[in-house]
Amino acid sequence: MSKAEPTKADLKARLPRGFVDRRADEIAAQGRMLDTIRRTFELYGFEALETPFVEYTEALGKFLPDLDRPNEGVFSFQDDDAAWLSLRYDLTAPLARHVAENFDAIPKPYRSFRSGYVFRNEKPGPGRFRQFMQFDADIVGAGSVAADAEACMLMADTLDRLGLAGQYVIKVNNRKVLDGVMEAIGLAGPEKAGQRLTVLRAIDKLDRLGLEGVRQLLGAGRKDESGDVTKGAGLDDAQIVELMHVVGPSTRHMTRIDDRLAATAIGDDEIVEDGRMVVLNDLVLNEWEPILRDSATGSAGLEELRQIAELVRAAGYGTKRIRIDPSVVRGLEYYTGPVYEAELTFPVTNEDGQTVRFGSVAGGGRYDGLVGRFRAEPVPATGFSIGVSRLFSALQLTQSPLVAAAPTPGPVVVLVLDRENIADYQKLVATLRAENIRAELYLGGAGMKAQMKYADRRRAPVAIIQGSNERAAGEVQIKDLIAGAEAAQGIASNAEWKAARPAQVSCPEGEMVVRVREVLALHFPQPETA
Amino acid sequence: MSKAEPTKADLKARLPRGFVDRRADEIAAQGRMLDTIRRTFELYGFEALETPFVEYTEALGKFLPDLDRPNEGVFSFQDDDAAWLSLRYDLTAPLARHVAENFDAIPKPYRSFRSGYVFRNEKPGPGRFRQFMQFDADIVGAGSVAADAEACMLMADTLDRLGLAGQYVIKVNNRKVLDGVMEAIGLAGPEKAGQRLTVLRAIDKLDRLGLEGVRQLLGAGRKDESGDVTKGAGLDDAQIVELMHVVGPSTRHMTRIDDRLAATAIGDDEIVEDGRMVVLNDLVLNEWEPILRDSATGSAGLEELRQIAELVRAAGYGTKRIRIDPSVVRGLEYYTGPVYEAELTFPVTNEDGQTVRFGSVAGGGRYDGLVGRFRAEPVPATGFSIGVSRLFSALQLTQSPLVAAAPTPGPVVVLVLDRENIADYQKLVATLRAENIRAELYLGGAGMKAQMKYADRRRAPVAIIQGSNERAAGEVQIKDLIAGAEAAQGIASNAEWKAARPAQVSCPEGEMVVRVREVLALHFPQPETA
Repeated sequence: MSKAEPTKADLKARLPRGFVDRRADEIAAQGRMLDTIRRTFELYGFEALETPFVEYTEALGKFLPDLDRPNEGVFSFQDDDAAWLSLRYDLTAPLARHVAENFDAIPKPYRSFRSGYVFRNEKPGPGRFRQFMQFDADIVGAGSVAADAEACMLMADTLDRLGLAGQYVIKVNNRKVLDGVMEAIGLAGPEKAGQRLTVLRAIDKLDRLGLEGVRQLLGAGRKDESGDVTKGAGLDDAQIVELMHVVGPSTRHMTRIDDRLAATAIGDDEIVEDGRMVVLNDLVLNEWEPILRDSATGSAGLEELRQIAELVRAAGYGTKRIRIDPSVVRGLEYYTGPVYEAELTFPVTNEDGQTVRFGSVAGGGRYDGLVGRFRAEPVPATGFSIGVSRLFSALQLTQSPLVAAAPTPGPVVVLVLDRENIADYQKLVATLRAENIRAELYLGGAGMKAQMKYADRRRAPVAIIQGSNERAAGEVQIKDLIAGAEAAQGIASNAEWKAARPAQVSCPEGEMVVRVREVLALHFPQPETA
Repeated sequence: MSKAEPTKADLKARLPRGFVDRRADEIAAQGRMLDTIRRTFELYGFEALETPFVEYTEALGKFLPDLDRPNEGVFSFQDDDAAWLSLRYDLTAPLARHVAENFDAIPKPYRSFRSGYVFRNEKPGPGRFRQFMQFDADIVGAGSVAADAEACMLMADTLDRLGLAGQYVIKVNNRKVLDGVMEAIGLAGPEKAGQRLTVLRAIDKLDRLGLEGVRQLLGAGRKDESGDVTKGAGLDDAQIVELMHVVGPSTRHMTRIDDRLAATAIGDDEIVEDGRMVVLNDLVLNEWEPILRDSATGSAGLEELRQIAELVRAAGYGTKRIRIDPSVVRGLEYYTGPVYEAELTFPVTNEDGQTVRFGSVAGGGRYDGLVGRFRAEPVPATGFSIGVSRLFSALQLTQSPLVAAAPTPGPVVVLVLDRENIADYQKLVATLRAENIRAELYLGGAGMKAQMKYADRRRAPVAIIQGSNERAAGEVQIKDLIAGAEAAQGIASNAEWKAARPAQVSCPEGEMVVRVREVLALHFPQPETA
């Protein structure tokens, strides 16, 4: 009667492209990673906030990475009052909305962290999902670069606590430095906003394309190996030379600093340069100074970077961990000051078989205009976002104990031999659970052999068996499946097995809990309790 | 230059209707509740599964509560290949899709739990949200009613572990019983599916409308106090009388059972009836027997209920906790067998000022057809869903220690008196954090008084203060804000305060960590560390 729809052979069970299911082991491992991040953020005084998955489309703004397709890339649908709603595509725009909506109730500066799924309506590919998790920390209402310095230190401490000490570098730059140069070469004003973004994106590709590739993208454009042409920013040669003065030499410095740190480093922070001790971050800053001297914006940016370098140095973070680096741009249009990125430095093999650094797992910067979209007065803010899946991959690659822990053992499985006595078996299960021992009744319709196979697939450490003889005697068989599996490797025949019956004992029902605990204690240093 | 959009006075920061933000205290309290549920589900051998928020619309089916508007109530959008996608509206349909898609890889019976937000595109109202959380447990691949019995016991144990022992009843019924009666009165066949659902929904309202109200809804319809008319199922008088034979007398039994449990109860399970001991659940089952004798479906349903009653009794769950109850229907069309519901029995005042039971916080049943939509063979399944927000409200109402715990104290706040020395303050913060003491640097631009106010609003237990004199002496002031607030109540004037400076001590910088720990240990039995 109240049946579901008739079976349809044509209704296929499939996930939409770019979405995935996750099973218990992965959920548990990623949960441990997320807990570590959360505790580190709390150590810094950040507090949790949760916003819904749906926002008014207009509240999200047009801040997607790809300026050419504003509002594309977002899943949107119309409400019954004709207003457009969208699934959030990051955790920053909803924070700006929340702060603006509850401005007076929130003590400022407001340190907020948020984690959760965001959505991009884009073409999925390997490692590119349409639903993925971010973990964000932001400080709203603090204009001082001390807030940016805190964000950089928090990134570093988080990676340390995840077991990645010595395998990352936090790279810091300032949009004002690049803005200063762009100003100087005639790219000021709102009508040049698109061109400026193309320039920033070209520089953003320095790691991947090298200096010559970036030079092409700043000019007419670049043809890649497959023959595809990317349109350039259309700068003339003089403009490109000027820009490369900022990006080029400093990039060479980075290589030099890496070499020096490996060879002649005294501490984390200093190297010997021409017989004098030089703070590494100062190398870059000093080189920029003459170039940016004539730009008010550029000089302000340089001064901010100096302050950040001083703050992290005072707090004990060496250049090996936090470094001024001119190649960091961050693609988003809304950044207004310092930008920063956490790069994992250990080598991996990329799709083309080349050995490269693992790369960026988190990034952010200052976005003083975002909350201000909703309010008359400006509200300064800075913060970053961790790419959770990418960081999780990194922890798997480095075999972090946090994610590589042995999978949780399964529950004790009580087999059902005589189906008419199922209430008796149910009672055994209830007895185990009442003692906080994870346990389940076999609920399928299969025979003894299939039930044992089921217990194996469930990673059950123990099976409880009670046939009619045992029941009459008030006893149960307790089978240690872990010891049994080990013993099985040394036994040749079924007959021999039946004679020996290794890892299996009989005991009165009243002793079942004690015996099961003994087996669990044997295999798991901490008893397997809920 | 890289600025955000110009400020728009007309861009309003607001949440869409039916969506909410959640702040730190609520997230933490609800997190403790969810952890307890998760651990109980794991005790029963259930394992975690996570499915994405988006599914193909056709995979979700047309199983929304409201048959009159199939596919309304769902947020949907079209993919670039024209396929329709929807936000999930429950956690059952995605489970069915997952099992069907990964059928051979999953050991069966498969015990799965899932938690997360689901979405309904409906008119929001008080307590009705368009995004809300569910926590589900399901057993797929077990046709035996032992699985339904497990689900009922799991509901009971979960509520016990949440501190609600003695304040709930799990009510169990069987769709086959009602189907049997509906068959008998001529409501069989697919063309009567709509009418059957209207009948089920009418019975579902027994709690709220009473017998007479249900009788009207089974017939021509019912006019409520406001004059609104709900169309009835259109049954004739003979049909209604027959149906009420099943629903009516048993409902009276429930009241009698409640009375008996209070007055003459021997144990949880038996009462004295006409001088004989009777198991409470048998009262209802025995009454149904003659009515259902001629219906194969009805008799099968009755037999299943007998087995469930026997299983839960064997496992030690009395009638006070798990009870056969004919008023439980569950509105969803897809249930095929046992249905069950967890009702909280403590009194609350409803919108009309009447005292009523708190009501249902979880419910479910057997849905043997749902996975089968994707496959040739039928796949039996049973499970339930907890309404997380409603359960959370119940725990708040009963002042459960789980959710009513004192809010987490804030971090130690290091004040900034001389802005040019911010690097020194930053170092103090770094020292505290390195010792796992939650701490933050004040990052705003305000003066001393506003900074102290900020520390209060952040619930900071301690403020660290260092003026130029202290800095010169290598000292810090440690201010116990909790003791200070208490002392302030006994002090009349500013002058007196300045002379006494209660709860504030100076110490060398090197002793700061030890002194802070002392203050934290004083106020928080477990030291406040991350």
